[in-house]
Amino acid sequence: MPLTYSPPIRDMQFVLHEWLGVTKHLQQLPRYAEFDQDTFNAVLEEAGKFASEVLAPTNSVGDLQGCQLDRTNHSVTTPDGFKEAYAQYVEAGWPALACEPEYGGQGLPFVINQCVFEMLNSANQAWTMYPGLSHGAYEALHAHGSDSLKALYLPKLTSGQWTGTMCLTEPHCGTDLGLLRTKAEPQADGSYALTGNKIFISAGEHDMAENIVHLVLARLPDAPAGSKGISLFVVSKFKLDANGELGERNPIFCTGLEHKMGIHGNATAQLTLDGAIGHLVGEPHKGLMAMFVMMNGARLGVGNQSLGLTEIAFQNALAYAKERLQMRSLSGPKAPELPADPIIVHPDVRHQLMSAKAYAEGGRMLGSYCGLLLDQAHHSADAEQRQQALSQLALLTPVVKAFLTDNGLSATIGCQQVFGGHGYIQETGMEQLVRDARINLIYEGTNAVQALDLLGRKVLGDQGKALTAFGKQIGAWGKEHSQEPKLIEFLLPLQNLGERLTELTQALGGKAMRNPDEVGVAAVDYLRIVGHLTFGWLWAQAAQVALAAIADGKTDPIYPAKLETAKFYFTRLMPEVETAFKRLQANANTVLKTSHALA
Amino acid sequence: MPLTYSPPIRDMQFVLHEWLGVTKHLQQLPRYAEFDQDTFNAVLEEAGKFASEVLAPTNSVGDLQGCQLDRTNHSVTTPDGFKEAYAQYVEAGWPALACEPEYGGQGLPFVINQCVFEMLNSANQAWTMYPGLSHGAYEALHAHGSDSLKALYLPKLTSGQWTGTMCLTEPHCGTDLGLLRTKAEPQADGSYALTGNKIFISAGEHDMAENIVHLVLARLPDAPAGSKGISLFVVSKFKLDANGELGERNPIFCTGLEHKMGIHGNATAQLTLDGAIGHLVGEPHKGLMAMFVMMNGARLGVGNQSLGLTEIAFQNALAYAKERLQMRSLSGPKAPELPADPIIVHPDVRHQLMSAKAYAEGGRMLGSYCGLLLDQAHHSADAEQRQQALSQLALLTPVVKAFLTDNGLSATIGCQQVFGGHGYIQETGMEQLVRDARINLIYEGTNAVQALDLLGRKVLGDQGKALTAFGKQIGAWGKEHSQEPKLIEFLLPLQNLGERLTELTQALGGKAMRNPDEVGVAAVDYLRIVGHLTFGWLWAQAAQVALAAIADGKTDPIYPAKLETAKFYFTRLMPEVETAFKRLQANANTVLKTSHALA
Repeated sequence: MPLTYSPPIRDMQFVLHEWLGVTKHLQQLPRYAEFDQDTFNAVLEEAGKFASEVLAPTNSVGDLQGCQLDRTNHSVTTPDGFKEAYAQYVEAGWPALACEPEYGGQGLPFVINQCVFEMLNSANQAWTMYPGLSHGAYEALHAHGSDSLKALYLPKLTSGQWTGTMCLTEPHCGTDLGLLRTKAEPQADGSYALTGNKIFISAGEHDMAENIVHLVLARLPDAPAGSKGISLFVVSKFKLDANGELGERNPIFCTGLEHKMGIHGNATAQLTLDGAIGHLVGEPHKGLMAMFVMMNGARLGVGNQSLGLTEIAFQNALAYAKERLQMRSLSGPKAPELPADPIIVHPDVRHQLMSAKAYAEGGRMLGSYCGLLLDQAHHSADAEQRQQALSQLALLTPVVKAFLTDNGLSATIGCQQVFGGHGYIQETGMEQLVRDARINLIYEGTNAVQALDLLGRKVLGDQGKALTAFGKQIGAWGKEHSQEPKLIEFLLPLQNLGERLTELTQALGGKAMRNPDEVGVAAVDYLRIVGHLTFGWLWAQAAQVALAAIADGKTDPIYPAKLETAKFYFTRLMPEVETAFKRLQANANTVLKTSHALA
Repeated sequence: MPLTYSPPIRDMQFVLHEWLGVTKHLQQLPRYAEFDQDTFNAVLEEAGKFASEVLAPTNSVGDLQGCQLDRTNHSVTTPDGFKEAYAQYVEAGWPALACEPEYGGQGLPFVINQCVFEMLNSANQAWTMYPGLSHGAYEALHAHGSDSLKALYLPKLTSGQWTGTMCLTEPHCGTDLGLLRTKAEPQADGSYALTGNKIFISAGEHDMAENIVHLVLARLPDAPAGSKGISLFVVSKFKLDANGELGERNPIFCTGLEHKMGIHGNATAQLTLDGAIGHLVGEPHKGLMAMFVMMNGARLGVGNQSLGLTEIAFQNALAYAKERLQMRSLSGPKAPELPADPIIVHPDVRHQLMSAKAYAEGGRMLGSYCGLLLDQAHHSADAEQRQQALSQLALLTPVVKAFLTDNGLSATIGCQQVFGGHGYIQETGMEQLVRDARINLIYEGTNAVQALDLLGRKVLGDQGKALTAFGKQIGAWGKEHSQEPKLIEFLLPLQNLGERLTELTQALGGKAMRNPDEVGVAAVDYLRIVGHLTFGWLWAQAAQVALAAIADGKTDPIYPAKLETAKFYFTRLMPEVETAFKRLQANANTVLKTSHALA
C-alpha cells in the first residue's frame, strides 16, 4: 500500500479565490491584467494531474534506489522514472510557468506557481528539487546577470532544457560563508577559472537535462577576507559558445554523492572545480548579496516543501485512520457491527490528524499570501505597494521557512504515529515523509538561523517597523470584524497574543541592547510566537470566510470543516506560545552560563 | 567520523551512590545483602568497556547492512560483527547478570542491570534488543511457567545460549490483542500445535544463538472471543527432548523481514506458525495477564533504549559543537585566534545540548529509581514495601516508556540539528540515532496508549491513590529541604506544579465521569505534566545533592554542572507544562467534534 495523493484543488480554490481573492489583486498588476480565475484553476487542475499521476509513482522508487555516481566519468544516474517524468514536465511546459515571456516564459503569477510546487512537493520532494533549483538560478541571473548572460542562460532554464544549482557550501563552511575558499582567477577573455571544493550541492549532477547551470560563490584574488570578499559566478557544466551551443565539458565534476537520511532521489553532490570556466554575475565582492536573491526564494520554497509533505502525510493518515480497526471508543462502540472501531474514534488519533490538517491548510494560506506579496513586490505599478510587499515578505520569509518546516516535521511524525508499527516500515511510505521532512529544518539556513534573522535583523534591526505594520494590519482586520459574534472566540485570543508579542518585543529590544546574546537565547521561541500570531490571523480569516459562506446558505462541507479546524488550531496548537512565553521570562543565564555542564 | 561513546560511569555513580544510595537500600533486601558498592562499580566499568569497545563499533555496520533472510531455509543472517559481539557477551556472562542463581544467574540487582543496558543501548540499540528480549521471555517463564518449563528453558536463557522473543502482533492487531487469531490445538501429549501468522517480531529469527524461545499468544479452541480468550505458549525454534537437547526444527518459520526506518540490525520478523509445537505457560485464557509481566519490563526497557540514545547523541553533539567553527558569538568573538568561534558559543546550540543533557541525566535518575523499585518489589522482606514499590512502579512505568521516548526523539533530533547539514548524512551517525529513536514511541504500546494507561487506569482507575502517595513523597522531600535557601528556585515551582496537577486530576475525574472521551482528549498532555513533575523532583534532588557536596568543599565539576542543568531544566524544559495546561482548559469538543474536518 504505497502513499496515495489527491491534489487539494478545492482547498486551493478556497485559499486563492474565497479568501485571498487573488484574481482581483493580480489583475491590478499590469503584468497579470489578462489572466482570469478560470485560467488559474485550469493550471492547478493540470498540475495536480501531473503531480498525482506522473510524479507520485516515482517517489518511493526514488527513495529506495537513490542516485548512482559513476566515478569513471563523474556521471550521475537518477532513479528509475525520474528522467522520464522530467521529460514530460518539460514537454508540458511547466518549467516556463512563472518565467518572463521575453525568455519564453508563460508569465504566470508566483502565487499560482507556489500552489503548483506544493503539489509537486507532495508527490516527490526529492525530484521537485531539480526544477526547484532551476528557479533559483533563473532568479539570480535575472536579477544580477548581464544582458548577454541572460540571453545565453534564461531561455534554456525557462524551457527546462537546462537545470540550475546553488553552489555555496564547502566542507568547513555552511552557515558561515565568509569562510569560503573557492578561488576565481581572471582570464584574458574576461572569464574566470574557478578552483575549489563544494559539498551538499542539491541537484548538483544528474542525467535529467542536457546541461547544468551552476551558480557558484568564490573569491577573486584581490578579495577582502570574510563575507565582503565573495563573488558570484555562473559555471556551465558544458562550456558554451557565443550562441549558447554546448561545447566541451567544463571541469566542474561530481566527485561524490552523500548518503543521506532522506531525499534519496536528489543527488547531493560533492563538486570539484578544477579551473572550471565561469562568468561573473553582478559586481565583484557582492556575491553574497546576489545570492540572497536565490536564498530568499529558496527559503519560501523550503517552507513549501514541508507544506507538501504535511498535506500528503495528512491525507494518508486520515485514510488509514478510517480503515484500520483497533479497540473500542472509550465512550462505547462506534461501529458495533465491526470487530473493533476504526481508530479515528480515538481522541489522540484525531488530535494528530487535526494538527496536520491545521498546519497544512494554514501553511497553504501563508504560502499563497507570500506568493501574492512576491507578485506585488515585483510587478506592482505602485512603488509604495512594492515597498510594503517587500518589507512584509522580508519579515515573513524566515517564518515561512522555519515555522512551516518545524510544523512539517511534527506533522509527519504525528501522521506516522497514526499508523503505529506500520508507520515504521517502508511499505506504507510514511517513514519516508519524516526522513524527507527532516532536511527542511536544516538547509537554506537552519531554523535557528531563521530565528536570528527574524528577531535580530527583521524585527530589532528595523526598530520593529515591519512587525508593527503587520500588527496594525491584523488589528485593522480584527476591528473590521469585531461585530461578528461567532468570531469572538478567535478575535480575542488573537488580540491578546498580539499585545503580548508587542510587550515581549519591547522587552527584548531593551535586553538585547544590554547583552546581544539575549537575542540568541530568545530567537527560536520568538519565531514560534510570531508564527502562531500569523497562523492565528490566517485561521481567524478562514473562519470568517466560512461563517459568511454558511450565513449565505452555502452547503459545501468545506465551511464547517474550516470552522472546526480553526477552533482546533486556537485551542490545541496556538497554546504552544504559553511555553515560549514562560521560557522567555527566564533569565538568559540558564542557557548562557552552562560552562560546567557543557565542559 | 563515526559516533564516539564514553560510558557515563561518573554520572551513574552520582545517581546510584550519591543520590539514590542504592547499596544501602539493596543491602536491606535479603537477596542483595552481600553485594557492595565496589562490586557494582566494577560491573559498570566492565560493562562500559564491552559497550564502548566491542559493541559500539558494530552500530553503523548494523544500520548499513541490516539483516538478510534466506527464503530457501528461513534463516536470517545478522550484520557483520553481531554474532561475534554476542559470543563475547555470552562468554563474559552478561546474560546471567540479573538472573536467579538457581538457574545459573549472578543475581545482581535490576538497578545495576538497568545501567548496564543503558550503555548497551547507547552502543547499539538494534543489537541490544536480542538479549533484551531474552529478559522478557525469562521473566514470563519465571513468573508463570511450570517447574518443568522453567528447568528446561531458564538455564539456557540465563547463559545466553538461547534468546527469546515476544510474539504478540498479527497483521490486523497490534494494540488490540483481543482480535488475535493464531490458534493452539491441544495434542494428545499435553502439548499444543500452533498455527497462525505473527508480524513485527523483534529478534524473531537470527544466527546469533543456537535456539530461540518464542513466547506466543494464541487462542485455544474453546476460547471466549476477545482479550479474555488468549493464552500464552512457549514455542522453541527447535523441538526439545526431555533433557532440553535440541531436536528437529519446529515449524515456526521466518517468512519475511520488515524494511524499517531504523533499528536495521534487529531482525523484525514475520513468523508463520504451521502446527508449531508449544506448551502452555500459566492458565488457559489468561495469557494476556501473563504477557503483561513481559510488557511492563519491556516498557521500562524501551524507556532505557531512548535514554541510551539520548546520552550518545548528547556526547557526540557536544564534541562537535566544541570543534566546529562557524560565525562569531553575538556578543563578540570568543576565539579571536580562530577563523570563527566554535558553534557552542551560539545560544541555540547550547539550548539543544542542555536539553539532551537534562533529559539524559534525568532519565538516568528515573530509570535507576524504577530499577530499585523493581528490586524492592521482588525482594523486600516487608510486604508493605513490596506493595508500595509495585504500586509506584505501576504508576511510573507508562511515564518511563512515553516520557523518556518522547524526550529521546526530540533530543536526538536536536543533537542532529547541532551538526547542521552534516547531521543529515549517514557518515556522522547522528541521523541513525533519530531513526532508531523513532520506534521507541511506537512499540510496546504507543505513547498514546501509555498515556491512557496512566490517566485512565493508573490514576483515575485507582481513585488517585498511587498518584497521591507519590505527591506526598515529593511534598515530604520538599518540606525536609525547605530551609535550604539555594533550593527555593526549585522547590517553589515543584510545589506549584504539584498543586496544579492535583487540581487538574480532580477536574479530569469529574469530566471523565460525564464523558469517558475526556480521558482520551486529556491523556497525552496529562502524561507530559506528570513526567515533568517527576523530572522536576529528580532535578531538584540532584541540585540538593550537588549543593550539599559543594558546601562540603567537594570540587568535582560534576556538582556545578548538576546545578546548571537543574536550572536549565526548570526554566527551559519544565515550561512545556504551560502548553499542556492551556490545552487542558479547552473544551474537549475541539478535538471530538471534528467530523467535517476529518470526513
